[in-house]
Amino acid sequence: MKALISTGGQGPDFEKVKDIFTHVNLVVAADSGLNRLVEWGIEPDFLVGDGDSIDTENVATKKYSYNPAPRDKDFSDTELAIIKCLEKGADEIILIGGGEGRLDHTLSNVGMVKKYAQISLWMTSKEIITILSPGNFITHHLPQTQLSIFPLDDHSGPVKTRGLVWELEHIDLNQSMSLSNRCVDSEINWEITQGRFLLLATYE
Amino acid sequence: MKALISTGGQGPDFEKVKDIFTHVNLVVAADSGLNRLVEWGIEPDFLVGDGDSIDTENVATKKYSYNPAPRDKDFSDTELAIIKCLEKGADEIILIGGGEGRLDHTLSNVGMVKKYAQISLWMTSKEIITILSPGNFITHHLPQTQLSIFPLDDHSGPVKTRGLVWELEHIDLNQSMSLSNRCVDSEINWEITQGRFLLLATYE
Repeated sequence: MKALISTGGQGPDFEKVKDIFTHVNLVVAADSGLNRLVEWGIEPDFLVGDGDSIDTENVATKKYSYNPAPRDKDFSDTELAIIKCLEKGADEIILIGGGEGRLDHTLSNVGMVKKYAQISLWMTSKEIITILSPGNFITHHLPQTQLSIFPLDDHSGPVKTRGLVWELEHIDLNQSMSLSNRCVDSEINWEITQGRFLLLATYE
Repeated sequence: MKALISTGGQGPDFEKVKDIFTHVNLVVAADSGLNRLVEWGIEPDFLVGDGDSIDTENVATKKYSYNPAPRDKDFSDTELAIIKCLEKGADEIILIGGGEGRLDHTLSNVGMVKKYAQISLWMTSKEIITILSPGNFITHHLPQTQLSIFPLDDHSGPVKTRGLVWELEHIDLNQSMSLSNRCVDSEINWEITQGRFLLLATYE
């Protein structure tokens, strides 16, 4: 079951994400992520979070269930939303938002992607982020798209690519990342041995 | 020997950083980090980078040495600046800039802090980031400052604090981070066993 979480921070334009809403079974707003959905005319199934950054008029018109979490809590609003998705049976989660802004929030979101393998896609204002797992597969991009590859797990293993300007075969991505690489073609072939990676594709 | 690197992305206000310039022996601009220095009336000792995001008029008035790097290179502009500082004998590096903006640049900067132990301080537009190493020590903050603690190394070990709203003794920070914690007092006592941490203090 597919779920979508709209969280705080900068997210993609509606044009980039609107088709996804027809393919998800559950929409959860994490705190100020609600504002974006209201702007788009989308009613979430659940709202979670401590309510400290939701526009008041959006909550006032709500039809969905909402029990505000305490401001002092063990989980971030995004993690509360993930937990809600998992409770409802989601085995795939798409995260939108969380771009730019405060570094602690950004690092927290990266931590969420690392902790919850159910998150398959993360769309911010500037990039679309796919989570790559071990295997042989192809990803599709517009030619010349800028790609960066970042190891997500400790000891993320060798990566072999075909289709990048700088192929990755001889780079130890456990020690660093591949920044502002580029697609030669519209198809990139991947061979990943172990561990997961963030593939960050910058919007054109 | 102390060095300061001004890199691209959003940086602190000049008021927050101006005293630091009187304590550093070397100033290096990484590409568009030059624009900030020029605005502040500060002449760097070196400019490094591929020049793809420097305002042309700033380069035209330059007095310092500058050999543009190729756009296609093995190091980011920030890493080129770090290498320049190390070549010149720096054993402590302060990084300013790199806030907000593209996630790949942010993650690359986190990677630099992880890779180069010489970086002791990182100041962005929204936060001041100290790198904590093993030992018993005190950090000073304004009361109620928001602090987040993020493990930087694999297997970063137990952390014990005194002075936070949520003390860290019983939290496994190897698996997660402490987001939006707060100072009770102006002094925080730390006991760190192994590994390094980013301490992110949000500006008031």
